[in-house]
Amino acid sequence: MSSIPEGRRVLTPPLRLAPDWHIAHWLNTRAPIALADLRGRVVLAVAFQMLCPGCVSHGLPQAQRVREAFAEDDLAVIGLHTVFEHHEAQGTTAALAAFLHEYQIAFPVGIDAQSAQSPGGAPVTMRAYAMQGTPTTLLIDRSGRLRLQKFGRVEDLRLGAAIASLIGEAELRPDGGEAPRGPDCDDQGCTLKDRDT
Amino acid sequence: MSSIPEGRRVLTPPLRLAPDWHIAHWLNTRAPIALADLRGRVVLAVAFQMLCPGCVSHGLPQAQRVREAFAEDDLAVIGLHTVFEHHEAQGTTAALAAFLHEYQIAFPVGIDAQSAQSPGGAPVTMRAYAMQGTPTTLLIDRSGRLRLQKFGRVEDLRLGAAIASLIGEAELRPDGGEAPRGPDCDDQGCTLKDRDT
Amino acid sequence: MSSIPEGRRVLTPPLRLAPDWHIAHWLNTRAPIALADLRGRVVLAVAFQMLCPGCVSHGLPQAQRVREAFAEDDLAVIGLHTVFEHHEAQGTTAALAAFLHEYQIAFPVGIDAQSAQSPGGAPVTMRAYAMQGTPTTLLIDRSGRLRLQKFGRVEDLRLGAAIASLIGEAELRPDGGEAPRGPDCDDQGCTLKDRDT
Amino acid sequence: MSSIPEGRRVLTPPLRLAPDWHIAHWLNTRAPIALADLRGRVVLAVAFQMLCPGCVSHGLPQAQRVREAFAEDDLAVIGLHTVFEHHEAQGTTAALAAFLHEYQIAFPVGIDAQSAQSPGGAPVTMRAYAMQGTPTTLLIDRSGRLRLQKFGRVEDLRLGAAIASLIGEAELRPDGGEAPRGPDCDDQGCTLKDRDT
Repeated sequence: MSSIPEGRRVLTPPLRLAPDWHIAHWLNTRAPIALADLRGRVVLAVAFQMLCPGCVSHGLPQAQRVREAFAEDDLAVIGLHTVFEHHEAQGTTAALAAFLHEYQIAFPVGIDAQSAQSPGGAPVTMRAYAMQGTPTTLLIDRSGRLRLQKFGRVEDLRLGAAIASLIGEAELRPDGGEAPRGPDCDDQGCTLKDRDT
Repeated sequence: MSSIPEGRRVLTPPLRLAPDWHIAHWLNTRAPIALADLRGRVVLAVAFQMLCPGCVSHGLPQAQRVREAFAEDDLAVIGLHTVFEHHEAQGTTAALAAFLHEYQIAFPVGIDAQSAQSPGGAPVTMRAYAMQGTPTTLLIDRSGRLRLQKFGRVEDLRLGAAIASLIGEAELRPDGGEAPRGPDCDDQGCTLKDRDT
Repeated sequence: MSSIPEGRRVLTPPLRLAPDWHIAHWLNTRAPIALADLRGRVVLAVAFQMLCPGCVSHGLPQAQRVREAFAEDDLAVIGLHTVFEHHEAQGTTAALAAFLHEYQIAFPVGIDAQSAQSPGGAPVTMRAYAMQGTPTTLLIDRSGRLRLQKFGRVEDLRLGAAIASLIGEAELRPDGGEAPRGPDCDDQGCTLKDRDT
Repeated sequence: MSSIPEGRRVLTPPLRLAPDWHIAHWLNTRAPIALADLRGRVVLAVAFQMLCPGCVSHGLPQAQRVREAFAEDDLAVIGLHTVFEHHEAQGTTAALAAFLHEYQIAFPVGIDAQSAQSPGGAPVTMRAYAMQGTPTTLLIDRSGRLRLQKFGRVEDLRLGAAIASLIGEAELRPDGGEAPRGPDCDDQGCTLKDRDT
């Protein structure tokens, strides 16, 4: 008997805190955004490159649709510009700003910091998540745990279901002052023993 | 502060039991399916006509995607053939069977019973739900309450989110183990006027 | 050196008169239409079945776009309802009339006559052209010769080019009163020896 | 009675020589390409910017489909990178080369020369054609005359028909074998103001 809906099966168990991102420069936001600032909300982050055809035709339009479909209070949508090729063409803030303007992307976008150890290769955040390429979709739960990481295309139906499942979960508070809320939290197994220590 | 996700905002409050459907003939199922048989699972029902272009291009393919994306244990997907025009062309079981075969629709489909009072007009289930036309998407929760009724197009993202939200809800159990229950009761209370006994 | 454009390469040499069609019943036209009535114009005929998904999603919408893009004086667009399966469901005039109404298909459609020798199989015109299935696209030139027969999908670009090539060709007049006109007729080899005798 | 096919109606009368283009740098070709080099072939030129969404989603994929559908001997396909905004982001050869690589655009692309009089504005070729923006589709006939200039979207059916119509036309030969010719003369006469000598 299955008690875990398919919509949640795209989600991994809540075993692992999402790594912090390392951003060289932010666009579409007045102040830098740390992952910790988003605790309490679900986070959809889409890693992209402005010259990646799959990002332009699929990943970014989907992120825009997600931004429309969910409330800011429940879900943060973040772009990560993870440039790992054509640095000269797409590596400048000006190029990205022009791109975001033309494609009318209004959610915050952070430029993933280039690695000092390996300049010209994959940038720091991309490495921290061991991403395979772009676009990569990340879902982080209200407690900061990485629950989905998918390279390539994710169906709207499954992504919508996964986001709603995470929105329905309670946040785990570090002070223990609040128990997992809601009748559906047990189904998900979001007990304290899953708390990342 | 909003604590109700957008994905759930497409859902109506759980005030009303879904009316029973009245089916003249079933296809793609060995036995007739009553709404009560599906209690405990979420139900997506799509009302369509085989000669309705919007049903063929949008409503039915979406129901097929939904069937793929969610587990049978969590979600039942049902088609309702609500013929309210061109009865000669699309009113026979043979015509519908040929259509389902060609379009590879494998989920159960019930042919909505024609009304004795008003033959040639809207059929019985369509009237019971006061549907405006086809396609119409219905979502019924685990406790049998109508939570979404939408004529026309519903975005995949929002539909996936709404289904996942309903899957995440507990069923109201008749043994009172979880909450008081009657067929027309819920956490909000009981609404006698919706009682369908 | 190629002097035959690709757009024409989808066209076969003008070796063969298009077989007459045998129509049981016409819709969307006041009088029956014989192929001979269309001599002097290019003819696009699309063979379809109302319950054929590829016809509904591709073949018929393309024929509608073609109807919009070319002048009636230059091009006739004809539908052929070549029912070779599900006769009970799609074999009646009423069913087809309802279908054409709902899909807003306004060009003339002929119902291909069922074969007396082989009732329930492929109808007469479908056999005369040895069609493999539906949709099948036919292009007939101003002189009544079959120049394209394609089962399945034809790209808009190539179809538009093929139609324009045929429109640019002169009609071969049986009384010999008119020579092939136009500077491009020689390229195509539309000499008198190709005249169907 | 109409003898001009719709497919040709998108074409303007052959009154005007296409202005020469002024290219700062070529990609995807070993040697620069002058418009005069293409005399005898039909030319499709698509003016685009790499950060123009309509170019990326429509104009450039269409040019790629056209390249596939017609023979090189009949039709040249050329891209013109007419940067009139975001010069910093899309104005370098490296940026364009990366873009062409990622989008697998293999036909020759010329970078329209920036205007010395008005740096930062519309480039020289864009001005010579008085283009309204990007994408702009140009069709030039075998004799070098501008026959179509369209800002925005052109349907595949109509573009295919227009190209085939032009391919079907004869070139005006300078030796007088077919018609008197000067670079700015045609069957309609000569238009001195267009003379580009």
